[in-house]
Amino acid sequence: MDFSHYWSSRQKKVDAALNRLLPSATTKPKTIHEAMRYSIFAGGKRLRPVICLATAEVISGKNDDAIPLACAVECIHTYSLIHDDLPSMDNDDFRRGKPTSHKVYGEGIAVLAGDALLTIAFEMAASCKGWPRYSHAAVIHELAVAAGSQKLIAGQVADLEGEGKKISPAELRYIHDNKTAALISSSIRLGAMSANATQNQLERLTDFGESLGLAFQVIDDILDVTQTTEKLGKSAGKDIAAQKATYPALLGLDKAKKEADRLTARARAALKPFGKDAAPLEAIADFLLKRES
Amino acid sequence: MDFSHYWSSRQKKVDAALNRLLPSATTKPKTIHEAMRYSIFAGGKRLRPVICLATAEVISGKNDDAIPLACAVECIHTYSLIHDDLPSMDNDDFRRGKPTSHKVYGEGIAVLAGDALLTIAFEMAASCKGWPRYSHAAVIHELAVAAGSQKLIAGQVADLEGEGKKISPAELRYIHDNKTAALISSSIRLGAMSANATQNQLERLTDFGESLGLAFQVIDDILDVTQTTEKLGKSAGKDIAAQKATYPALLGLDKAKKEADRLTARARAALKPFGKDAAPLEAIADFLLKRES
Repeated sequence: MDFSHYWSSRQKKVDAALNRLLPSATTKPKTIHEAMRYSIFAGGKRLRPVICLATAEVISGKNDDAIPLACAVECIHTYSLIHDDLPSMDNDDFRRGKPTSHKVYGEGIAVLAGDALLTIAFEMAASCKGWPRYSHAAVIHELAVAAGSQKLIAGQVADLEGEGKKISPAELRYIHDNKTAALISSSIRLGAMSANATQNQLERLTDFGESLGLAFQVIDDILDVTQTTEKLGKSAGKDIAAQKATYPALLGLDKAKKEADRLTARARAALKPFGKDAAPLEAIADFLLKRES
Repeated sequence: MDFSHYWSSRQKKVDAALNRLLPSATTKPKTIHEAMRYSIFAGGKRLRPVICLATAEVISGKNDDAIPLACAVECIHTYSLIHDDLPSMDNDDFRRGKPTSHKVYGEGIAVLAGDALLTIAFEMAASCKGWPRYSHAAVIHELAVAAGSQKLIAGQVADLEGEGKKISPAELRYIHDNKTAALISSSIRLGAMSANATQNQLERLTDFGESLGLAFQVIDDILDVTQTTEKLGKSAGKDIAAQKATYPALLGLDKAKKEADRLTARARAALKPFGKDAAPLEAIADFLLKRES
């Protein structure tokens, strides 16, 4: 399997769909649509939508029905970055090597661009065709819970409240589970739903998603310590400067790396029952463990 | 019809449903759920949810199926107020006589409380039972479009960009149509959908909603000029201080009042085909025209 070709072809498919599903930059009022597109097309890796498509492929061998859901999770991810970067939250000036939304458009428009991306995610999800095992109601419920006050937003709240405080490994796990793993896991579940997965398949893929999502965040923490700002495209060492708890800070770098390996192995184990069909998801898990930015 | 009893009984029903559908204030992380509830239970009139229930009653004589949608529109309305009040937008310290969310919880949590209310609105809408004429997809599409970057958010963007500038009556109309009338009109449409209205009924009620929504905002502008801060429960004269365009500022107070009367009459005319069944909506239209806060 040529992973780099696999990834870039799915990325392109996601980019084309986002371009089609988002209002054009000249749609009135222009500022908001420019701002939405600025952050969506700021060079994100498209991890969540690609993994959503890959999961659909593992189940059904195709991914077209997953496209609107893949775009919806990318819109939710991007909205959460815009709001996290605000001066009243993480106060980040750069993201993926580019000035953050509020640095370009001002804070008011940045708040609204995030709001608009969150809202359009549900419009995209509602535009899907229905599925035999999963109704629109089930799919939209999945998305709303993953993005909601007890998952994605809960993680950001706990992160905000934990800054400058000594927090326990359990609390750190809570932040990562919710702030990062929940939406990654949900991207996988939505991909499975769009391919009409059985209940049993959905459960195994949920296990995969939870381990992979957490592994992803542990690696993010490690990269913040070990990589340069240039390579990351965002301010390196930022977590340390903000006195944020991270896995390397709590466990030491070696143990953090072992935890990432352990979680990745657990993720791969959950894929066993799918045999060779799981190749795309296995390749993604390996890629995430070995990534350098 | 005892309008005051009618209104308060529907308000109570909405309050009870919101209390049931929102996570408790002790749900982890507590701060976000406290903040969501603080703004939801800050003494709002419940105009949008009550009008949603009243519309369902006009069609079917009952309103139970409209409850989750009524709560969803109230969550969206409340989120939009929390974000509009932020220092980076209208910078309001008081709302309904109480300190605004960011004054109580800080800006970061206020942004997230708004995000969480927007998100849970879609979870509520997804929790509805389906309807013969309107699928979950149709209902959630309606809600997402009304709250999206070409309606509710478009109005706020145009409002933000118009501050301190001389804007035309057409531009003012654009702001009001989108910032206020769109969600009021959508509350009515969702009430009609929940009662399985015919296409013809839905169209007439849409006409009603558009006129009523605009009348509501013209009256809001008039009250900002003519009432005291105490009576309004928010800073009176705020629009003038912020050099915001309003109907009284553009047309003069007398013409603004006549415009409100004209729009209310047009709203009432759209109800004609419903005969006596339309009594609750007629009463609401009259109440809104004569209100003093």
